[in-house]
Amino acid sequence: MENRAVQPGAAKLSRSDAALLSLDVLTLRDRLASGAVRTVEIARACLAQIALREPQVQAWAWLDEDHILAEAARLDALRATGRPVGPLHGLPVGLKDIIDTARIPTENGTTIDKGRVPTEDAAIVRQIKAAGALIMGKTVTTELAYLAPGKTRNPVNPAHTPGGSSQGSAAAVGAAMVPLAIGTQTGGSVIRPAAYCGIVGFKPSFGTIPRTGVLTQSPTLDTVGVFAGSVEGAALLAEVLFGHDPQDGATALAAPPRLLATARAAPPVKPMIAVLANPPGPVSPDEDMKLAIDELTEFLGEQAFTITLPPLFDQAAAVRERINHAEMAKNYYGYERRGWDALSEVTRSAMTAGQDIPARDYISALDWRDILNSALDEIFDRCDAIVTPATPGTAPEGLASTGSAIFNGLWTLCGTPAVTLPLFQATNGLPMGVQIIGRRGDDARLLRTARWLFAEVMQSQEETGNG
Amino acid sequence: MENRAVQPGAAKLSRSDAALLSLDVLTLRDRLASGAVRTVEIARACLAQIALREPQVQAWAWLDEDHILAEAARLDALRATGRPVGPLHGLPVGLKDIIDTARIPTENGTTIDKGRVPTEDAAIVRQIKAAGALIMGKTVTTELAYLAPGKTRNPVNPAHTPGGSSQGSAAAVGAAMVPLAIGTQTGGSVIRPAAYCGIVGFKPSFGTIPRTGVLTQSPTLDTVGVFAGSVEGAALLAEVLFGHDPQDGATALAAPPRLLATARAAPPVKPMIAVLANPPGPVSPDEDMKLAIDELTEFLGEQAFTITLPPLFDQAAAVRERINHAEMAKNYYGYERRGWDALSEVTRSAMTAGQDIPARDYISALDWRDILNSALDEIFDRCDAIVTPATPGTAPEGLASTGSAIFNGLWTLCGTPAVTLPLFQATNGLPMGVQIIGRRGDDARLLRTARWLFAEVMQSQEETGNG
Repeated sequence: MENRAVQPGAAKLSRSDAALLSLDVLTLRDRLASGAVRTVEIARACLAQIALREPQVQAWAWLDEDHILAEAARLDALRATGRPVGPLHGLPVGLKDIIDTARIPTENGTTIDKGRVPTEDAAIVRQIKAAGALIMGKTVTTELAYLAPGKTRNPVNPAHTPGGSSQGSAAAVGAAMVPLAIGTQTGGSVIRPAAYCGIVGFKPSFGTIPRTGVLTQSPTLDTVGVFAGSVEGAALLAEVLFGHDPQDGATALAAPPRLLATARAAPPVKPMIAVLANPPGPVSPDEDMKLAIDELTEFLGEQAFTITLPPLFDQAAAVRERINHAEMAKNYYGYERRGWDALSEVTRSAMTAGQDIPARDYISALDWRDILNSALDEIFDRCDAIVTPATPGTAPEGLASTGSAIFNGLWTLCGTPAVTLPLFQATNGLPMGVQIIGRRGDDARLLRTARWLFAEVMQSQEETGNG
Repeated sequence: MENRAVQPGAAKLSRSDAALLSLDVLTLRDRLASGAVRTVEIARACLAQIALREPQVQAWAWLDEDHILAEAARLDALRATGRPVGPLHGLPVGLKDIIDTARIPTENGTTIDKGRVPTEDAAIVRQIKAAGALIMGKTVTTELAYLAPGKTRNPVNPAHTPGGSSQGSAAAVGAAMVPLAIGTQTGGSVIRPAAYCGIVGFKPSFGTIPRTGVLTQSPTLDTVGVFAGSVEGAALLAEVLFGHDPQDGATALAAPPRLLATARAAPPVKPMIAVLANPPGPVSPDEDMKLAIDELTEFLGEQAFTITLPPLFDQAAAVRERINHAEMAKNYYGYERRGWDALSEVTRSAMTAGQDIPARDYISALDWRDILNSALDEIFDRCDAIVTPATPGTAPEGLASTGSAIFNGLWTLCGTPAVTLPLFQATNGLPMGVQIIGRRGDDARLLRTARWLFAEVMQSQEETGNG
């Protein structure tokens, strides 16, 4: 499968680099394993693409060419010894700049943390290093992973936002600067930028990926997620990240699921999709998105039925926000004390709102996750996954706003796994995505259904010449 | 071992009933197993004692003689079939009236719940029924298991409080009306009444006993505990109660510890006791208690060393109260709406205080449990258990107050297991207890150390004629 985000024909990229960058990450992995390509070559191709696109896209908060090439050489040397290597050996990964990296700056998108260099890697950084990943660099985050935008631009059209908060990770993968990246989602910070940048985003079930060493905004909601050009690529990276961490009480001591093998397998029976064309809340999908969802529903035919959610769900966005703000007021107290004036208006007003939330309302809000999941369970008894717009429309123009996360918060609150599938193009030329949602804990099955759906739609687009 | 709480020589009790009631619950269990005694006989002895003492002590909220005798006969018949029976078969147990019992009133100590009859048993009621226990009845609780006293009097001296909130359970065991009873502790509601009534109380580690079907006051703190005449009796009952309950997220999916066998075993080496003579906070133990702790420390000699807690612990009581009030305001919202005027002043003022607590302060308070346990871990690295006063002194006179829980809240907040040992008698003739505290999760070891300490002290008192 081709990486849809690659911009072939870019003037200054060599043909061999362009060819490398157009490969899906699993193909890259196989070629590395067979010796057909070296990590250093991949790193050089990524660096060439970065040289080409970064001046416009601005996806990176920290990137050191010498460091990357030295690490790539070290990984090639390690492979040459013939010793066993991990599942990510030699594959470049970008890390959102709220993920601690030892001896590498981690500034959390705020001048308050300017020059901050952690002494320890986050748990997930240790995990991907152990799996042999090449840390490509740190990607731009919005301020403290909330709404105030960073410098990153949409790789498809730089006049538009890439979305947030994991904007650098999404844009870097979208611009083919790196095949894999890691982000986080507290509202819609993985699913939304993936949709805006035309790539695959995967926010797994709450409690699957350890968060130790990742900036804590709202522990009830914060979820680590991944970006890739394909569902299989997302599964490959996520499988390395899943695990139990005694320091993250949300993670459970359970065997991690076989995400990649399941994602690559054919569904045992043709999946049944519940289409939620009109997500609950005050915002409706725009005309392009409505048409796209209608088309998709029609395309699925007997494999789809439409659903609406009970009125209970109308309050989910407000409930999620209440939890988010209250926990933000608590967890960002240090920033409040050290640098209130350096914070953006939008962050300050969220923290102020959080300070005013009574404990009782906060505790009541926590009950909603189970209540809503009970209601969702009845839907998941009848389908393999829910498909619904990832965003109301395409990426808004300008960088002032990172766009609306209104369609994402519900699934973050519920802790259900979600995948952005970049299935459509809007009339303005920008990508549009759906999100496909699975039952909480059924991440492997969701990835399998997502890969199936993506392949079905891509095949039909190729057949009709719309690919 | 004799049940210290029995009042032998009571005028109207037959000699055989008095003999039965003086037996420790493990001896009762063995005699039931050998056929030397029947459940009906034990039930009759308990009922005779209740007839004698209940008019004064007022320990029971619901008790039905016919129901008890019919159940006792059924249990005897079941044993007669020769089929396997559970570890509590035929042993009477009293249940605090906040524990739901199907078809038996459960009124939570408030007129708001007058006539409330649950349709389902609490998880722990199912557990003890499956183990063959004879449900003796429901015991008096303070209003909603908080501070406003019920009608119960101290069985040792009816002019004094029995403590709270599990006052009926403690008084019923203290008056030898029943050999075993269940209570709950959110502040000091097991350890304190056990001390005031001169019996053994055991509040296990947080998260060990399921709370489904038990009135929720403060889910972060609420802990089910047991009352018995001996440490072994407490271990016998608690072992049946420990377990995982998917509906109580605080319980873990882990094999329950062998509490009874461990409690009965000799410690592999002589235990080392850390004596905390002056618990943190604004209240000091009274003179009698100070002397008792000094005597105990001297008695232990090389097996004890004295400790103080770092200043950090001074705030623990306030932190616990903040969590308690905030969660109470949330969980008792139904009572607020349905019967605010029917609630006592003390309950209302706690709920009002809870309503005013900001979410941020509440969430910050939740961090303290781990912080304090880290500090305690350093102490537990050097000793088997901490011994400290269970209460500042003996039970206060009158029923207006259930006494101070100031020495108990810290251990409830930390979720460490605690056992009341009724080691002393004050100059006013009332019992005085110490609490012995173990490392969180080390319940079996704590019970073993507690039994050892109790036996050592009893033996020395017998030798010096102070028993």
